[in-house]
Amino acid sequence: MNYTTQEIKVRYYETDQMGIVHHSNYLKFFEFARIEWLEKLNIPYHEIEKNKIILPVVKCELKFLKPLVFGDTFKVKVHCTKKPTSSIEFSYEIFNNSGEKTTEGKTLLAFLNSDSMKPIRCPEIISKLF
Amino acid sequence: MNYTTQEIKVRYYETDQMGIVHHSNYLKFFEFARIEWLEKLNIPYHEIEKNKIILPVVKCELKFLKPLVFGDTFKVKVHCTKKPTSSIEFSYEIFNNSGEKTTEGKTLLAFLNSDSMKPIRCPEIISKLF
Amino acid sequence: MNYTTQEIKVRYYETDQMGIVHHSNYLKFFEFARIEWLEKLNIPYHEIEKNKIILPVVKCELKFLKPLVFGDTFKVKVHCTKKPTSSIEFSYEIFNNSGEKTTEGKTLLAFLNSDSMKPIRCPEIISKLF
Amino acid sequence: MNYTTQEIKVRYYETDQMGIVHHSNYLKFFEFARIEWLEKLNIPYHEIEKNKIILPVVKCELKFLKPLVFGDTFKVKVHCTKKPTSSIEFSYEIFNNSGEKTTEGKTLLAFLNSDSMKPIRCPEIISKLF
Repeated sequence: MNYTTQEIKVRYYETDQMGIVHHSNYLKFFEFARIEWLEKLNIPYHEIEKNKIILPVVKCELKFLKPLVFGDTFKVKVHCTKKPTSSIEFSYEIFNNSGEKTTEGKTLLAFLNSDSMKPIRCPEIISKLF
Repeated sequence: MNYTTQEIKVRYYETDQMGIVHHSNYLKFFEFARIEWLEKLNIPYHEIEKNKIILPVVKCELKFLKPLVFGDTFKVKVHCTKKPTSSIEFSYEIFNNSGEKTTEGKTLLAFLNSDSMKPIRCPEIISKLF
Repeated sequence: MNYTTQEIKVRYYETDQMGIVHHSNYLKFFEFARIEWLEKLNIPYHEIEKNKIILPVVKCELKFLKPLVFGDTFKVKVHCTKKPTSSIEFSYEIFNNSGEKTTEGKTLLAFLNSDSMKPIRCPEIISKLF
Repeated sequence: MNYTTQEIKVRYYETDQMGIVHHSNYLKFFEFARIEWLEKLNIPYHEIEKNKIILPVVKCELKFLKPLVFGDTFKVKVHCTKKPTSSIEFSYEIFNNSGEKTTEGKTLLAFLNSDSMKPIRCPEIISKLF
């Protein structure tokens, strides 16, 4: 189970004065990659939230192999690493337009009820997909 | 009626590859200046929101006289330009640590009910302050 | 002379706790719209910078007619308002996926030499296009 | 060897529509904590960069124990985990105003020459401090 995003352009404001994409942005790239994937699987994330379910990130790790710079385009390959329970883990690889892997990462997200902020089990509509 | 923030440091991630603070950040500087002011006036913004009132920005303008760079500190001077009605207007001036004015701006914010998203009048607790 | 971007998705991290896109992001949307336009005109912005030319924003204004929310897609229509001199002015309109205009704005950018930070005239390669 | 920042306020724009601080911001909090520490140790980060040394993040991990929300203040405790070589590792803990630990993390930064982008050894002025 995995999904690769379309080509995405580095946006100018994502750079910092080192002349590379600021490292905090990669968590944002991971975020839109997993959201785009859910959407392709017919589970738009804003529908999940309407059902009082939120998915905060509870753990993450990143490894930077090569910087992305302004002018680059990149793809995010996202993978669901195990059967979701009360949390769901994704791993990510980012490739630049030369096909080089620039970044690796993982995020663990918890399923919470947005009113109580208490953990819940992964909704079946999601768990059956992975 | 005006308020000047404490010295604030430019944060590294606020820079872009031009080596200056990215222009979008100044709207964030204006935001925390007006929020800090309200707090000093004993109106914490999170209390306003608890009362189902939100204050989205509906109009703004900015003029950049001199860039802020990493290593700079700055102060924001914020001023309430007229009696609030169903909206409130603030003007801003930013000064760097050499006392030079770097930025000028204005924001107009609307008072809305957060459930209905409809305009409301400025709550008296706020209007009596300005 | 104008250009309309492709459909762009609101990214989750662009929202704030009001549940709408934070107003500072619209300056970022304007930025990638004008950069995408220059690219289509065969002037990639990173090539401009390689030629020691930078284009900081010196003035801008925004008017918010309707919020963008997560789940929306939008297009930015960008327009060059007059013949560039030592500065270039763009105006912008954002339309959501229902075709409603959500935002209007303008930015004035200065042409500077990136070594001296002094104003320069608009390079002919750009001025001849507008 | 460790350092604790002053009380920092959550800024409104750091929230997302879940009503909590967006997870990408914690890497920014870590960043200004380590930069503030270096400054207290008399090594302003912008001086490091003037000497053609940059310190990109090459690896990081984060664990979110409790969300920070708007209205919170927090402190970052930063710790240098081992003698710097061609890289330097920091660990972080964030505590909210109730003294609860909200976040843990680690970042590994490489010392690079900013012209060649090649690894270099930690400058003595820094290594002798840790």
